[in-house]
Amino acid sequence: MSIKFYGFWRSLAAYRVRVALKLKGLDYEEIPVNLLAGDQHDPAYLKINPQGAVPALILEGVAQPLFQSMAILDYLDHAHPNPSLMPTQPADRARVLALAHLCASDGHPLVVPRVRNYLQNTLKLDEAARNQWLQHWTLQALQSFERALTQDPRAGRYSHGDQITVADLCLASQVIGAGFFGCELVDLPRVTAIHQALMEHPAFSESMPSRQVGAPTPTTTH
Amino acid sequence: MSIKFYGFWRSLAAYRVRVALKLKGLDYEEIPVNLLAGDQHDPAYLKINPQGAVPALILEGVAQPLFQSMAILDYLDHAHPNPSLMPTQPADRARVLALAHLCASDGHPLVVPRVRNYLQNTLKLDEAARNQWLQHWTLQALQSFERALTQDPRAGRYSHGDQITVADLCLASQVIGAGFFGCELVDLPRVTAIHQALMEHPAFSESMPSRQVGAPTPTTTH
Repeated sequence: MSIKFYGFWRSLAAYRVRVALKLKGLDYEEIPVNLLAGDQHDPAYLKINPQGAVPALILEGVAQPLFQSMAILDYLDHAHPNPSLMPTQPADRARVLALAHLCASDGHPLVVPRVRNYLQNTLKLDEAARNQWLQHWTLQALQSFERALTQDPRAGRYSHGDQITVADLCLASQVIGAGFFGCELVDLPRVTAIHQALMEHPAFSESMPSRQVGAPTPTTTH
Repeated sequence: MSIKFYGFWRSLAAYRVRVALKLKGLDYEEIPVNLLAGDQHDPAYLKINPQGAVPALILEGVAQPLFQSMAILDYLDHAHPNPSLMPTQPADRARVLALAHLCASDGHPLVVPRVRNYLQNTLKLDEAARNQWLQHWTLQALQSFERALTQDPRAGRYSHGDQITVADLCLASQVIGAGFFGCELVDLPRVTAIHQALMEHPAFSESMPSRQVGAPTPTTTH
């Protein structure tokens, strides 16, 4: 089976999908779409992802490309269930998805390139105000995540017990974003511990933005 | 079975869940959380929803409350599969979720009360600049949705053929938001037609913000 994965080294949404592909042991070819250069708005690329964003996935035998990271993760988990990234009980699934969406739906969409461009070019915010925005929303999602972990006994080594789930993929991407934006992760002990545990897994550490083609420095991240 | 649904008349995320509860014929009690008055930040409510937002759902026999609309919809569809709001094939599921997330993850999070407050109180944007923001992001999601519908033969009377899916719940909430913010829906023929078809269903029309307890005027919306 052939998988074409449209990503970008810096994209946090692409990170989630890259980790899932590696966790499931799937072979893929990553095709970079330079978001900083605006390549996602190219008419040819819009035929692949009508939103003009990454990630997108083209699969052998699937007529239309897949897009939106959470939709791609759902697909991969149904089509390649081993290992599964979701619990089986509906209430547990709901918990994992709620945690995932704290990052993927409410934290991350506020710091993507199209929003950063609007802050700079339309609102004419200076760099300090832009950084304050990026840190504020990135941290707010992690604070909600921490509170959710504290209030629920189902948290464990990872966000949901000892199983790596989509909540962990989203948490890792959010913490990586916090690093990009210079956030100080204070009063987030559970978030920090889970992130550390995740980074011990090669699927998470090898997917790091800094280790992808196109990243500005060829250093590894520890 | 008893369901306590924490919502708010104006919340677009609560709207999605309200429609799903009605489509599935589930009895529920809606408890308003006044987002405009800041009731979502009350410490007692944070025990129910650690994010301090609506919706949240408390279910008999489920130890912890559910939160995040997309997670709640996933739960309801697994626990009460008739009628199902998701297709069965993985690639079709992925398409429906991608469409849903265009609205729920990338459009809506940019216009929620916490962001509107930040624009007003931290960035000190005037009303014109705030309205421009709200319209820009609301329309951008709908434009991506329109493009996605155009490029994929699986669209039908609704977003995915003739089955009402979570994509439709999210599309309806996004179009309702466009109404709140005074967006002109030009060049969106498929989005408009599907929204009109959805509003013919009582689950969608009776869930309208304007028809909920707490809404400022007791008019019905047609």
